[in-house]
Amino acid sequence: MKWLLSLGLLLASLGIQALPLVEKQRFDLASFTTQSGAVLKKVSVGWEAYGTLNADKSNVILITHFFSGTSHAAGKYHDSDPAPGYWDAIIGPGKAIDTDKYYVLSVDTLANANAFDPNVITTGPASIDPATGKPYGLRFPVVSIRDFVRVQKALLDSLGIHKLHAVVGASMGSFQALDWAVAYPDEVERMVSVIGAGQMDPWTVYGLERWSDPIKADPAWHHGDYYASGQPREGLNKALAYIIYDASYPDGFNRRYPAPTDQAPKVDIDAGFASVKALASQAALRAKYQDANAILYLVRASQIYLAGYEGNLEDNLKKVTAKTLFMPASHDRLLVPKMARSTFETLKKLGKDTQYQEIDGPWGHLDGLVSIPSQAGVLKAFLAK
Amino acid sequence: MKWLLSLGLLLASLGIQALPLVEKQRFDLASFTTQSGAVLKKVSVGWEAYGTLNADKSNVILITHFFSGTSHAAGKYHDSDPAPGYWDAIIGPGKAIDTDKYYVLSVDTLANANAFDPNVITTGPASIDPATGKPYGLRFPVVSIRDFVRVQKALLDSLGIHKLHAVVGASMGSFQALDWAVAYPDEVERMVSVIGAGQMDPWTVYGLERWSDPIKADPAWHHGDYYASGQPREGLNKALAYIIYDASYPDGFNRRYPAPTDQAPKVDIDAGFASVKALASQAALRAKYQDANAILYLVRASQIYLAGYEGNLEDNLKKVTAKTLFMPASHDRLLVPKMARSTFETLKKLGKDTQYQEIDGPWGHLDGLVSIPSQAGVLKAFLAK
Repeated sequence: MKWLLSLGLLLASLGIQALPLVEKQRFDLASFTTQSGAVLKKVSVGWEAYGTLNADKSNVILITHFFSGTSHAAGKYHDSDPAPGYWDAIIGPGKAIDTDKYYVLSVDTLANANAFDPNVITTGPASIDPATGKPYGLRFPVVSIRDFVRVQKALLDSLGIHKLHAVVGASMGSFQALDWAVAYPDEVERMVSVIGAGQMDPWTVYGLERWSDPIKADPAWHHGDYYASGQPREGLNKALAYIIYDASYPDGFNRRYPAPTDQAPKVDIDAGFASVKALASQAALRAKYQDANAILYLVRASQIYLAGYEGNLEDNLKKVTAKTLFMPASHDRLLVPKMARSTFETLKKLGKDTQYQEIDGPWGHLDGLVSIPSQAGVLKAFLAK
Repeated sequence: MKWLLSLGLLLASLGIQALPLVEKQRFDLASFTTQSGAVLKKVSVGWEAYGTLNADKSNVILITHFFSGTSHAAGKYHDSDPAPGYWDAIIGPGKAIDTDKYYVLSVDTLANANAFDPNVITTGPASIDPATGKPYGLRFPVVSIRDFVRVQKALLDSLGIHKLHAVVGASMGSFQALDWAVAYPDEVERMVSVIGAGQMDPWTVYGLERWSDPIKADPAWHHGDYYASGQPREGLNKALAYIIYDASYPDGFNRRYPAPTDQAPKVDIDAGFASVKALASQAALRAKYQDANAILYLVRASQIYLAGYEGNLEDNLKKVTAKTLFMPASHDRLLVPKMARSTFETLKKLGKDTQYQEIDGPWGHLDGLVSIPSQAGVLKAFLAK
C-alpha cells in the first residue's frame, strides 16, 4: 500500500497524470413500492460516474450492470486497486464510451449479489427490515428488472437528468437497458443490449434455476434465515462456479483449466479433478462478498424478465423510440444469440432503427466483457449516430 | 393389457406378423479385476440380441449404450410394452442396422444407472458385496469405460464370437465403441461413434461433475450408504433433470416446455415455474428405477474416459484398424461436435479410413437418438462398405 502510494507520487513527479479516482456515491429513497406490490420503507443504492455532466444534462450514458456485477463499470477507487471496473476497456477518455464527451453513470441494483462488498450499496435480503430490526431474508419481496430501472429513474430524476443519450448494459444489464427503452421511451435516445435478450424462455429459466439449487440444498441455508448462523458458504460457492461455467465456452475454458490427466480419480471415487478444484477456488474468491439469498433474488428477477414487465414482447417493443443496437456473443451458451436476434428482428419488422452485431471470441457469454473491445468501433459509431 | 393381447391376436389373424419378442439374457463372470485394480468376486450383466448369428459368427454388430441407457436397444419384451428399445428406428429388419443381415447384440454396463429396472442386470454399487453381504455403496471400485468393454469382450468370447462386423454406440456408448477399436483392433472391423468423443476435456469433466452435485448434497445420500434408509430421491431426481437438460438444445426444449408466463413467481420467492416442474416430473419418472450411486460411478467412468484408457489419444488411435464413422449432433451442447471432429481429424491425419457426418436437429445431444434416422442411409452404407 505504502509502496503503491509512493508509486503514485513518483508517477506524479514524472508528470504522468493518473485518471481521476472514482468515488462511490449513495442514493436514498424513503419509500419504494415494488412491482410485486410490497412497500420498502428505505431503499439505498450506490452509484458512480465518470466524465462530466454538461450544462443541459444531455450527455448522460447510463450503464446497467450484469448479474454478478456492481456499479463499478470503469476506473479505480484507489491507485492501488488491482483492477479497474469491468468495462474499463470501453469506458474512458477517447474510448468507445468516451468520458471526454459523455457523463457515464452506473448504479448498483436492488438485491445486488455483492451485498457485503464495501464498495457496494444495495437494499436486498441481507438488509435490515425496519419493521423487525433484523435482515429481511426471504421476507424481502420479489424484485424485478423494472424495479431496478425505476430506482435508477428516481436517482436520475433527483439529479435533474431527464434524457439519456444512451443506456448500455450487458447480460442482466441488457434486460434493464431494453426495459428502460420500453418503460420510458421519451427519455431514452439509444439502447445497447450486450449479450442480452428481450424475454425469458423455458430453456433460460431452467439454466438460471440451477444456480439456486446448490444454495437451497445447503443445510446452512435455513430457508434464507442464516444471517446470525452464517452463510451457506458451500452452496454459495457452488452457485458461483455454475455461474462462471454457464457463462463460459469450451474453447476458453479448456485453455484456462488443466486437462483431466489426474490419476487419483481413476482409483478413488472420492477423489476430485484438478480442474474442478481450480474452478471451485475461483468461485470461492468471487463469492467472498456475496450474499446467497441475493443470488436467489437475482435469479428470480432474471427469470421473470420481459422487456416491458408484462404483456407480450412485440406489443411492448412498439413503444420503443430509441435507436437500438444488439451485440450478442456468437458462442454464448447462457443467453443464446438467437434471443437477441429475434428481439432485433421484431424491432426491425416494426420499422424501428435497430442494428445487430455479434461479438466473436472463445469465452461465450463472457465475451460480452472480455471480447467487446473488438467491436468498440461499432459501439462508438452507434453512440455518435 | 387384455386389450393389447387381443390386438396381437387380431393382427395375427389378419396375417400381420409381429416381430419376435426380445429376451433378456444373463452373463456371469466368477471374477473380474477392474482397471483400478479391484477384484470383483461376482459380476453379472444382462444382454439381448436381435437377428440371427450366422454360421461363422461373422455378422455380429455390438451396440454399446449411453449413460442413462440399458442394453434394450431395439424391439419389445412384450407386445404390451409402451415403447420399443431406444434405437428401434435404426435397428430391425431392413433398417440401417439390418437384423435380416446382422446379429445385433447389446450388453448392460457395469454400474448401470437403472439398477432397479427389472429388465436390467448389472453389477454396481447397489449390488451385494459377497465379502459383507451388504450393498457395496461407495466401497464399489471405480470402474472405467475399458471395464465395460472387457466385460463385453468376455461375453463375446463365451459365445465364440471373435470378430465384430461393427461396434456402434451413442454418447457414453461411443466411448466404449472407440475404446473397443483401440483395445482390440484385430476384432473390430467397423466403429461408429454417435454423439461421441475421443477423450474428456476440463469443460466436459465439469459438466458431468454437476450431475453428481445434487446427489451428494442430498442429506439422504449418507456418503452412499442409503440402501437400508432409502435413496436420496430428491438429489437423484434433480440429477436426472440436469442430465435431460444438458442433453437438450433450446429449440427442442422450448417447444416442449411451457413459456414462463407464470404469475406466482413474480410475487412469491418460493413459487416455481410450470416448466421447471414439468422437467422435474419427467426426471422423476426416468429416475424411478435408477440408483443414485450408479450415477456417480457413471459420471466418474465418463470423466476418466480416454480411448485407450491411458497414454495419449493420438498414440492410441494409431492402433485402430477399423473403418470409423463419427456422427456428432450439430447442436450438441454436452459432447460438442468439435470433440468428435478432432478425433476424426486425428485418424485422418494418421491415414486411417474414417468418415464424418453430423446429425442435424432441434434437440442437441438427444438428436443422437431422436434425429439419427435422418442419417440412416449414411450409417447403412458405412456398415456395408
